[in-house]
Amino acid sequence: MIIVSHRGPVSFTREPDGTFSSRRGAGGVVSALSPLIEGRDDIVWIAAAIGDDDRAAVAADAAGVAGFALHLVVPDSTDHRLHYDVVSNATLWFLFHGLFDLPRRPRFDQHFRSSWTAYRTVNQVFADAICSTAGEGDVVLVQDLQFALVPAMVRAARPDLRLAHFTHTPFCPADDIRILPDDVAKELLTSMASAPAGFHTERWAANYRACVEEILGVTPPTFVSTFGPNPAALAATAASPQALEAGARLDAEIGDRHLVFRTDRIELSKNIARGFLAFDRLLDLHPQWRERVVFAAFVYPSREGLAEYLAYRQEIEQTAQRVNERWATDDWKPVWLDTHDDFARSVAGLQRADVLLVNPLRDGLNLVAKEGPLLSTRDVVVCLSRGAGAFDELGPFVVEVHPYDIEQTADALHRALTMDPGERASRAADLRRLAGARPASEWLDEQVAQAASAT
Amino acid sequence: MIIVSHRGPVSFTREPDGTFSSRRGAGGVVSALSPLIEGRDDIVWIAAAIGDDDRAAVAADAAGVAGFALHLVVPDSTDHRLHYDVVSNATLWFLFHGLFDLPRRPRFDQHFRSSWTAYRTVNQVFADAICSTAGEGDVVLVQDLQFALVPAMVRAARPDLRLAHFTHTPFCPADDIRILPDDVAKELLTSMASAPAGFHTERWAANYRACVEEILGVTPPTFVSTFGPNPAALAATAASPQALEAGARLDAEIGDRHLVFRTDRIELSKNIARGFLAFDRLLDLHPQWRERVVFAAFVYPSREGLAEYLAYRQEIEQTAQRVNERWATDDWKPVWLDTHDDFARSVAGLQRADVLLVNPLRDGLNLVAKEGPLLSTRDVVVCLSRGAGAFDELGPFVVEVHPYDIEQTADALHRALTMDPGERASRAADLRRLAGARPASEWLDEQVAQAASAT
Repeated sequence: MIIVSHRGPVSFTREPDGTFSSRRGAGGVVSALSPLIEGRDDIVWIAAAIGDDDRAAVAADAAGVAGFALHLVVPDSTDHRLHYDVVSNATLWFLFHGLFDLPRRPRFDQHFRSSWTAYRTVNQVFADAICSTAGEGDVVLVQDLQFALVPAMVRAARPDLRLAHFTHTPFCPADDIRILPDDVAKELLTSMASAPAGFHTERWAANYRACVEEILGVTPPTFVSTFGPNPAALAATAASPQALEAGARLDAEIGDRHLVFRTDRIELSKNIARGFLAFDRLLDLHPQWRERVVFAAFVYPSREGLAEYLAYRQEIEQTAQRVNERWATDDWKPVWLDTHDDFARSVAGLQRADVLLVNPLRDGLNLVAKEGPLLSTRDVVVCLSRGAGAFDELGPFVVEVHPYDIEQTADALHRALTMDPGERASRAADLRRLAGARPASEWLDEQVAQAASAT
Repeated sequence: MIIVSHRGPVSFTREPDGTFSSRRGAGGVVSALSPLIEGRDDIVWIAAAIGDDDRAAVAADAAGVAGFALHLVVPDSTDHRLHYDVVSNATLWFLFHGLFDLPRRPRFDQHFRSSWTAYRTVNQVFADAICSTAGEGDVVLVQDLQFALVPAMVRAARPDLRLAHFTHTPFCPADDIRILPDDVAKELLTSMASAPAGFHTERWAANYRACVEEILGVTPPTFVSTFGPNPAALAATAASPQALEAGARLDAEIGDRHLVFRTDRIELSKNIARGFLAFDRLLDLHPQWRERVVFAAFVYPSREGLAEYLAYRQEIEQTAQRVNERWATDDWKPVWLDTHDDFARSVAGLQRADVLLVNPLRDGLNLVAKEGPLLSTRDVVVCLSRGAGAFDELGPFVVEVHPYDIEQTADALHRALTMDPGERASRAADLRRLAGARPASEWLDEQVAQAASAT
């Protein structure tokens, strides 16, 4: 069996003595898959060499790591940059999440055309790696939007292989697929439709089918399968010295105040600024929360190579600052914004949150919404956007958030903060049960079954 | 019969001597309706007093004008500003045209809530004006997104009246209606669904029905009807001294070069910057057009009270300047951008255009796409975006434009410039026929029939 994802289970670092050390990768997919695959010598994981040290490790034939049959692919670095930054992140990610400022972007110009060619080339490099690695009839599980052209390429070269593709993002409504150049939309969907296409929720699967029907006039095979965080791994992080220390600092900082908490990548789809505006409105409408609540937002930088993300980070910082300027007292800073990447500290925050705000515009799944209930020591109330894929699972037990509606979000926070303990406990128990109900192993098995059935 | 539109057939100006003069209003709806209604004393036109002089004319009881039974309504000026700027222009217009930069806007905050209340109040003022004006069983034709709540208000107060509502913009796909606050979407659509709702094309009608089905779970009555420019009025403008003089200046400026032409409001949906980028790419790809083509863009300011529109104007100017910096020679300035509002000059441009570029992201109809063929003296080739409502009528005889695809648009311009004279003449004849095929009188009659049938 072969698993293909852009980010691999580890990244390499060249040490001063010239040797290479490896470190576990972050990210939901990698965290979910790694424990399942470690030690299984029937599985090869193909991923991209990301960064100079990964490439150097491959060049030095030092990219092996205990427990994994890992194959790092090294595309041409210009092709890889265009594939990743321009097509995957600035085009497909934006399209599927609905993030384009359409009067201005996208512009499908000459630069995009070169980038699309590079995207195709990088997909072909991975398809070639799959084909040269796979034995007769092997199962191939291709992950995410970086590799949407791989299914057609592998099908063409190796009809014996049994392949499924899984999209971890949302998929756009049928109208929006027309934003892509006609030939690009057709090439993308023709490839995806050549294999069973998996999504975290029926909503994204339905959008995808509608797109394929719109562009190709056929109904493609789809499946829905999802997973939750690994409870044991979360518990281990929560028990780590880093998390304990971060937790002690949080306790000292927050004291006996209520904690509204969020943790996200600094990502346009995460809707961080509107979260601060809703908290501002909460303090405005309900004076009882002044000096009584802290909103801790541990959000960490992402994709800072894209100008949109740098600008968004500034907007977030300015919005948080304005809320603090309006409400802070000598003893109380209402918004605690921290942009250092520290997973253990986020875990400590999730353990202590009274209210967890997860208000993305649109999100493939959103693992934080499941991590919160699994980690909570305080019967956390989750305020969850209807735009998150996880809403389809957790909806009955969260407080629903309308991501564009500041007034409604402020009201949701107030409802969460005032919820009586009995209801909190009951909802938290249901959320904990649902958040742990879908182990990644079942999700992996479902992909294998889908791939096998599509021969 | 009562016609209700935000802009009336005339606007008033207070003269130095204290009297009021009136001037014909601009805009497609007003131009189409005015000739039909002038002199018909069975029709009352209800519109908003816009600007101080209109309000002063009403106060002085001087808002009458020969040929029209005109009733100018004067809402509270703060309410009117919130109704028009915040709800109609910055929210509903943006929603229906798909213009939101969603990571940042809209923000449904306290200010929006006050504005929505003001929108409702202004709609009630107009509903009251209708109810106090209308005789038993009268037909009431309500125009456009400024008055979406009027149908329900009139229905409630005067069930005897027979009402239709007509939307001149596009309507958004079903997914996007969820961007509005839940109660706002429900109130808006419940009102619209209480009367037959008209649209320029089946596309927008289908989107609207899908939105109502999504939010209310019912299928509302709709109808599709549209109109073209008034050929006689266009001919009269073309024969005016202003147009003749502007034409002579254009001839001198352009000489024997080909003319690519556009004329639009400076409006985010019109996609003006990408048009310049496509022209830049045309010059890049096809050196034969260097020094041989001028792109004249007569685009005029609009809604400069909204920051987005001022910013967009700057972007347009900068884009045009960059193209000129790249390609201009001593004898040739490739882009001629002019932002003065001068309809006669636009008519002169439309008469002379070899190629007319109309590339909106999304547009309810787009009258320019019909004015061009009716005015052309050169068998104009129309490069028309698939996003324009008019594309559904004119599609077979235009060169299709993908509004986000710069490369495709450059190619469309090249195809248009190189089209052989026989094909040009044949297409131009078809376009002329179609552009003149739907007189506004039939469109008005259809609304009356729809209103009458919905008692």
